[in-house]
Amino acid sequence: MTDSINAAFRSIDAATGEPFGDPFETHGLADVEAACIAAEAAFEPYRQASHEARAAFLEAIADGILEIGDELIETAMRESGLPRARLEGERGRTVGQLKLFAQVVRDGDWLGVRIDPALPDRQPLPRPDLRMRKIPLGPVAVFGASNFPLAFSTAGGDTASALAAGCPVVVKGHPAHLGTGALVAAAIEKAVESSGMPRGTFSHLVGPGNELGAALVQDPRIAAVGFTGSRAGGLALVKLAQNRPVPIPVYAEMSSINPVLILPEALKARGAALGKEFVGSLTMGAGQFCTNPGLVLVLEGEGLDDFIAAARSALTEAAASTMLTAGIHAAYEKGVEALASSGDVTEIARGKPGERTCGQAALFETTAERFLANRALGHEVFGASSIIVRCRDEQEMLAVITDAEGQLTATLQMDAGDVALASRVLPALERKVGRILANGWPTGVEVAPAMVHGGPYPATSDGRTTSVGTLAIERFLRPVCYQNLPSDLLPTDLRD
Amino acid sequence: MTDSINAAFRSIDAATGEPFGDPFETHGLADVEAACIAAEAAFEPYRQASHEARAAFLEAIADGILEIGDELIETAMRESGLPRARLEGERGRTVGQLKLFAQVVRDGDWLGVRIDPALPDRQPLPRPDLRMRKIPLGPVAVFGASNFPLAFSTAGGDTASALAAGCPVVVKGHPAHLGTGALVAAAIEKAVESSGMPRGTFSHLVGPGNELGAALVQDPRIAAVGFTGSRAGGLALVKLAQNRPVPIPVYAEMSSINPVLILPEALKARGAALGKEFVGSLTMGAGQFCTNPGLVLVLEGEGLDDFIAAARSALTEAAASTMLTAGIHAAYEKGVEALASSGDVTEIARGKPGERTCGQAALFETTAERFLANRALGHEVFGASSIIVRCRDEQEMLAVITDAEGQLTATLQMDAGDVALASRVLPALERKVGRILANGWPTGVEVAPAMVHGGPYPATSDGRTTSVGTLAIERFLRPVCYQNLPSDLLPTDLRD
Repeated sequence: MTDSINAAFRSIDAATGEPFGDPFETHGLADVEAACIAAEAAFEPYRQASHEARAAFLEAIADGILEIGDELIETAMRESGLPRARLEGERGRTVGQLKLFAQVVRDGDWLGVRIDPALPDRQPLPRPDLRMRKIPLGPVAVFGASNFPLAFSTAGGDTASALAAGCPVVVKGHPAHLGTGALVAAAIEKAVESSGMPRGTFSHLVGPGNELGAALVQDPRIAAVGFTGSRAGGLALVKLAQNRPVPIPVYAEMSSINPVLILPEALKARGAALGKEFVGSLTMGAGQFCTNPGLVLVLEGEGLDDFIAAARSALTEAAASTMLTAGIHAAYEKGVEALASSGDVTEIARGKPGERTCGQAALFETTAERFLANRALGHEVFGASSIIVRCRDEQEMLAVITDAEGQLTATLQMDAGDVALASRVLPALERKVGRILANGWPTGVEVAPAMVHGGPYPATSDGRTTSVGTLAIERFLRPVCYQNLPSDLLPTDLRD
Repeated sequence: MTDSINAAFRSIDAATGEPFGDPFETHGLADVEAACIAAEAAFEPYRQASHEARAAFLEAIADGILEIGDELIETAMRESGLPRARLEGERGRTVGQLKLFAQVVRDGDWLGVRIDPALPDRQPLPRPDLRMRKIPLGPVAVFGASNFPLAFSTAGGDTASALAAGCPVVVKGHPAHLGTGALVAAAIEKAVESSGMPRGTFSHLVGPGNELGAALVQDPRIAAVGFTGSRAGGLALVKLAQNRPVPIPVYAEMSSINPVLILPEALKARGAALGKEFVGSLTMGAGQFCTNPGLVLVLEGEGLDDFIAAARSALTEAAASTMLTAGIHAAYEKGVEALASSGDVTEIARGKPGERTCGQAALFETTAERFLANRALGHEVFGASSIIVRCRDEQEMLAVITDAEGQLTATLQMDAGDVALASRVLPALERKVGRILANGWPTGVEVAPAMVHGGPYPATSDGRTTSVGTLAIERFLRPVCYQNLPSDLLPTDLRD
């Protein structure tokens, strides 16, 4: 059942802005309802399938994505404007993530089993037999991100962790990579069938506008939402979810400027090298990373001139690269223009200009005083734009951190002599972010058990969670306690 | 700093409705702000205190509560109308809970430590060293419940788990047990001092109306809220928290009617005994338990008449007992009257009538068809009122479960021959509740690692959590990842 074939709903070549390929079938509200009914029907059999069957299903999805072959990479390249190497890497990450979650399912730690045996002779009252395990919440709606057409989209982290938890998934496909999404969705649907999972375990819906996504979040069968995208988009979904008759959790990963603190000894020892590395991180992928370093805090002192000179030089040479969509490019240009004309920053350099939707990198500087006086300077400009904030002393640096909104990451560039200062700023950083790095750059998020890709509001809508790494599965689970159940009624996970 | 001594703000004798004792100092908005500023100032030193120091502090609170001696029990008896044995038991539970959380803090499992060592030779990219631990959210606001003046109030489960997590606590004291709250608050304050914890680690605010509590939830320094009480009260706090510039989680445990399913073989074998036990659970503590059995589902068949006859007989003999407050008593009377006059239930029996604010128990019956047609029958009536729902078959029983709102508990009364039927209803129960019991009664919540006192909305505002048992600590924590931090900068919990 599909709404219609909408001639206007075609893939867009990110570089040229021109549509290409056949139009896609678009879905309507009846399709949303049908997908949610199917997901609800699939929930019981899917969650009751053995852990081994669920793990094998995740692996079958991974294999299916690889089997698509180069068509997937070429489609994603054309739709996103991202280069081949990046997308091949992203495919590897997506496949590896599915396989990692297969292992998580097999290991069973996610069940959170706790067993308190009965104490029949306890005084004054006996203790009953209590056993806890976690169960999946129910069908999950996933909204893919534009900036990771594979790893944060149709079969990305939200989908992988929700399926691993035992939740059927209904994906609202991102309109910026329709062809990529359709190829991956077909691979998942094939895996559903070959693995013998119930049909509604996975559905994929596409269509223009916000109506489809809104209906999906409001469907009473949906039990949770995963989202990666803009703050406005995420907060709109949060509001819809809160106003349902039965509110549901929304895990929205939204916006972050990822402060980088360059501490004095590091600045003195390697200011120029850091300036160059910083621009490498800033301009990678046209700056279209959630963890892009959009704010650099430096203490006035030795090495700062070298840092800025090296950053200026590298940025001036930075080639413009195609941004994901014309809309993202327009928003980037608008954001950079707003900064440049704010009167509160000085331009250090601009990257090479480019054609059409190529993003021209931009680097500004200002003082802590001015930064603190103009909160707009702390808003994310999605793309390769950043501000260096000069702090006169440690107190100013701390004030900027304390005043900042919640962030995904904070980075310390530090040498041995900076440890004392780093120790003093660390507690303030912990309260603001989900991940703290030393002597690296925030772009690049490892998929691993100890990863946190999350952080206090408004970096995400729920700072108690992560959307990358194996802990992401906990977003889709809740605990149930079984008291004195006869052993033949107990879930097998909880039997002696 | 206190607003004033409000002559009208005195303890109320639950049995007589008369005020007694000296008036209490009431707090105003300036006190809320001062308490939150102090809590924020206390947060860093309190969370950085050693686990051992934090555990010893919790134990000092427990000891301090015991040291109050009989004055605490007598004050609570007079303010709540609850009997001595119940309050002595509740004191034991409160003290035991604090000591259990001390042990939890020492064990350190709550840190959720995960360590992924660096893989410097991994291809195509090395893996950084990643280490995760959980940190406390920040100052927590706690709203005590009227029905457990000790175990769910000033030093109850929310306070114990928040302090265990490393969060300072600001309690909004319940006006129905001002004297009890003041005694316990003084014991906590003494423990703060004797344990060398920072002064703002604990504050206690009291005052009439909702203004104080609203200001507390809206204070920017508050990072989370624990609440046990009415649905209206809990949802009002949720809304306030969602509309803050930085929204925060609210853990509100609100309302539940805790369905009891009496399966055919159990009904046949022990209908009369179950009827009597059921009324015992229903009328305990004037029915003022979150887990009170307000709904009984039975299949028409052998034993049902015996069950109803025994319940009628026991309920008719049930003495009226003093309810917690005149307001709770009035709401109870109104709820029972609404049921009785709904036209959709038949009265089975009423308990003995009582004076003033004594609650007269009430038992009704209806059919599944009528129950499903009138959703108001499924609303909680806080007190000793329950409805027996006659189901013609398994499908009707399942329909009532599937249609029900989220609940704290569900209970199965079952014999060996009921296992097959129980297995078929179990999945539906799991989706609706936080705890499933067999052959017991839901009143009575063990404080233990495997306990879940939570459940899907609207039993609580966040069905992913529990407010009783050691897992409750997780409500006040969030994960932080440390990437490539030099070992002398790493938190000690994460060092090799």
